[in-house]
Amino acid sequence: MSSIFTKVINGEIKAFKIAENDRFLAFLDVFPLAKGHTLVVPKQEIDYIFDIEDTMLADMTVFAKKVALAIEQAIPCKRIGVAVIGLEVPHAHIHLIPLQTVQDINFTRDKMKVSEEELEEISIKIKQFIS
Amino acid sequence: MSSIFTKVINGEIKAFKIAENDRFLAFLDVFPLAKGHTLVVPKQEIDYIFDIEDTMLADMTVFAKKVALAIEQAIPCKRIGVAVIGLEVPHAHIHLIPLQTVQDINFTRDKMKVSEEELEEISIKIKQFIS
Repeated sequence: MSSIFTKVINGEIKAFKIAENDRFLAFLDVFPLAKGHTLVVPKQEIDYIFDIEDTMLADMTVFAKKVALAIEQAIPCKRIGVAVIGLEVPHAHIHLIPLQTVQDINFTRDKMKVSEEELEEISIKIKQFIS
Repeated sequence: MSSIFTKVINGEIKAFKIAENDRFLAFLDVFPLAKGHTLVVPKQEIDYIFDIEDTMLADMTVFAKKVALAIEQAIPCKRIGVAVIGLEVPHAHIHLIPLQTVQDINFTRDKMKVSEEELEEISIKIKQFIS
């Protein structure tokens, strides 16, 4: 069965995309910990981040950096935090989260509810800064 | 003033080292969230992870992967979680944390107290699996 992220990649689920190339996709987390919270995934369905082969993992990190720098320009924050947990969706994903405090990267707290309209606005704002 | 991690790198502060090359160092966090919690740092004192130049960031990720796979073999866990927060020590560092639950990567909770003897044992155990 396809992971939920594969469905996003294949356009079967609506997503607010930020950046994309042939191997990676960045899109907004629809249940964010902070506004601008973005997920970076490989298009290939690989469960565990450290099962990704070295060159691809290196390229994914550089792709995520480009996305992080765009989020940082679009969303007021101290810096962009990074997390990979992987205990839920079996498709590797890097969380990029605009941080004001360490609470913004606490995955045990309740997620935010953000309207589709606002997610759309946020994605447009961030995309402007993708180089 | 040197960051606390630069002092670790220069051997001015005792550390339980896991792996090292000319550009990066991995050592145990002495106030871990879980036993085996390791920090990966560039030897060059760069505050913000996304200020690290692309090639170096890519190489740091591949170095961190090697360390993560060793931790995973040494410490019983579901997988290794990754976090970069950067709101405290102004020297970029990747946290690698053996996860059983998402609570193991919750930076808002109290850190563990682990004796020097046990940290030493843990570092020896992990080092055995560095390829």
